[in-house]
Amino acid sequence: MILTVTLNAALDLTYRVPVLTPHAAHRVARVTERPGGKGLNVARVLAALGHETVATGFVGGATGEAVRRLLEESAGPLTDALVHVSGSTRRTVTVVEPAGESPDPAATTLRLATEPTRFDEPGPHITPEEWAAFGERYARLLRDARVVALCGSLPPGVPVGAYAHLVRQARAHHVPVLLDTAGEPLRRGIAARPDAVKPNTAELAALTGSTDPLRAAQDARRRGAHVVAASLGPDGMLAVTPEGTWLAAPPRPLYGNPTGAGDSAVAALLAGWLEGRPWPDRLADAVALSAATVRAPAAGEFDAKTYDDLRDRIRVSPL
Amino acid sequence: MILTVTLNAALDLTYRVPVLTPHAAHRVARVTERPGGKGLNVARVLAALGHETVATGFVGGATGEAVRRLLEESAGPLTDALVHVSGSTRRTVTVVEPAGESPDPAATTLRLATEPTRFDEPGPHITPEEWAAFGERYARLLRDARVVALCGSLPPGVPVGAYAHLVRQARAHHVPVLLDTAGEPLRRGIAARPDAVKPNTAELAALTGSTDPLRAAQDARRRGAHVVAASLGPDGMLAVTPEGTWLAAPPRPLYGNPTGAGDSAVAALLAGWLEGRPWPDRLADAVALSAATVRAPAAGEFDAKTYDDLRDRIRVSPL
Repeated sequence: MILTVTLNAALDLTYRVPVLTPHAAHRVARVTERPGGKGLNVARVLAALGHETVATGFVGGATGEAVRRLLEESAGPLTDALVHVSGSTRRTVTVVEPAGESPDPAATTLRLATEPTRFDEPGPHITPEEWAAFGERYARLLRDARVVALCGSLPPGVPVGAYAHLVRQARAHHVPVLLDTAGEPLRRGIAARPDAVKPNTAELAALTGSTDPLRAAQDARRRGAHVVAASLGPDGMLAVTPEGTWLAAPPRPLYGNPTGAGDSAVAALLAGWLEGRPWPDRLADAVALSAATVRAPAAGEFDAKTYDDLRDRIRVSPL
Repeated sequence: MILTVTLNAALDLTYRVPVLTPHAAHRVARVTERPGGKGLNVARVLAALGHETVATGFVGGATGEAVRRLLEESAGPLTDALVHVSGSTRRTVTVVEPAGESPDPAATTLRLATEPTRFDEPGPHITPEEWAAFGERYARLLRDARVVALCGSLPPGVPVGAYAHLVRQARAHHVPVLLDTAGEPLRRGIAARPDAVKPNTAELAALTGSTDPLRAAQDARRRGAHVVAASLGPDGMLAVTPEGTWLAAPPRPLYGNPTGAGDSAVAALLAGWLEGRPWPDRLADAVALSAATVRAPAAGEFDAKTYDDLRDRIRVSPL
């Protein structure tokens, strides 16, 4: 099975409003409620693709119960192995304006208006006992895992070196491990030599100081990651691997709600890993699934038709 | 006891962020969770003042359970008589920027920046059976009620003439009834001749077409309300009653989070009604309690020191 870790799970709320006006009252016409946190998005996409997936991490409170109930309703073979904690799972609120959903299809750069407005609660405080309980659960799950993804931010109370620790544990179990996080947890985690990291360009720049994605990805590899797969937003994905360096790009940039696009890319990379496919194929799938997610209403979901249409139309060029 | 009706109860979330920037991601530093909906704010303030209060209306889902749990923790003699429904209680999200909380104390007009940004979910769909169940509960509660307040918006499924119907029922039971709502529910409700309405200036203008508060309040009285107590924001309250017309103003405008200020004014008016106090005293209390709420962290709460300090310092002038 594929194991995903979501230490800071969330109840994701998406609010649709005509226009967001600061200091005004907005009647929300439509509310979408989904399980959230990068790792749960990855798990839902994998399960929907038919892969046996186990989701672990932390969950608590009424919001945590809502997350579990929504996970149960998810499509595919998804097992809930979340660890219950005393605090409450955080909410995230994403405010989407229709103007951002249907920009000029002829536009060739990502319009700022397509970015939704997000509010992220900090998450529950994890006690040392809860962190230890997770450690035991993780070690047990690693025995059956064929690949593991460590995704997203750390809730308060979890040590900043947590991902470095979890990467080393996965490697000790000979389970390939992909890390998708940012900031100091990424900096520490990458030094523990994960099999892959999947930063976006902003995360790469913050890590390496370089705004050139190729240079930054090469630098990130030197810091310890065997593979760096960098998502370039609507322009696709760049991967620096021991077998070569590639750029995978969609036939044209696709617009929509970018939330969860990176998580779908992670799901595709994990599935490709499991199947032992060559990197160019994994990247093409990652870009197609990413674009299909931009076309879906929420993170953790994808538009099956867009995915099928795009899979064979991604240009993968060696660099 | 005092009865409050909240047909569209809410779980009120307050998010504090340094600055709200549309199309950006915000890490929320502090989250406040409270029972919400105007009627529940009124009930919590009344109970905190020591008045036997019964709160009815609709509640459902995980958010509804959270509302009930928070109500239980409220101070004072507050009884939960909410009717359980199949849909989920809505959330409201209020985004507060610290800049809006500490404006120039010498300012004499309400700064726009003091207004928080609000997102209101629509609320659960109420079925005809649920509406009928509420009608029975309301009729039974009216037997012991000495005054009743009907507050806030209507959830989907409740007929737009609902408040007119509830006003007539209260009058048939000889229970004084105060209506605090807006738009078409106010227009219909006022025609059923409630003992009082408490619109703000925007609601009065929408009802009557007049932006002059005195004219608009007089017009609203002619439409059926025995008393019109109009809240004028930081400038106090204007009341047109059969005994006279008064303007009650604080010694100086008070700034802070205005959410819930109007609900505290309603609470003071109900308490004054119960005690049979003259209108000028009721208005002074309403303005003082309103200002004390602006100084509190959340709707349904008030700063006791501000309330004590201000009670005897409100200027009430006959017009």
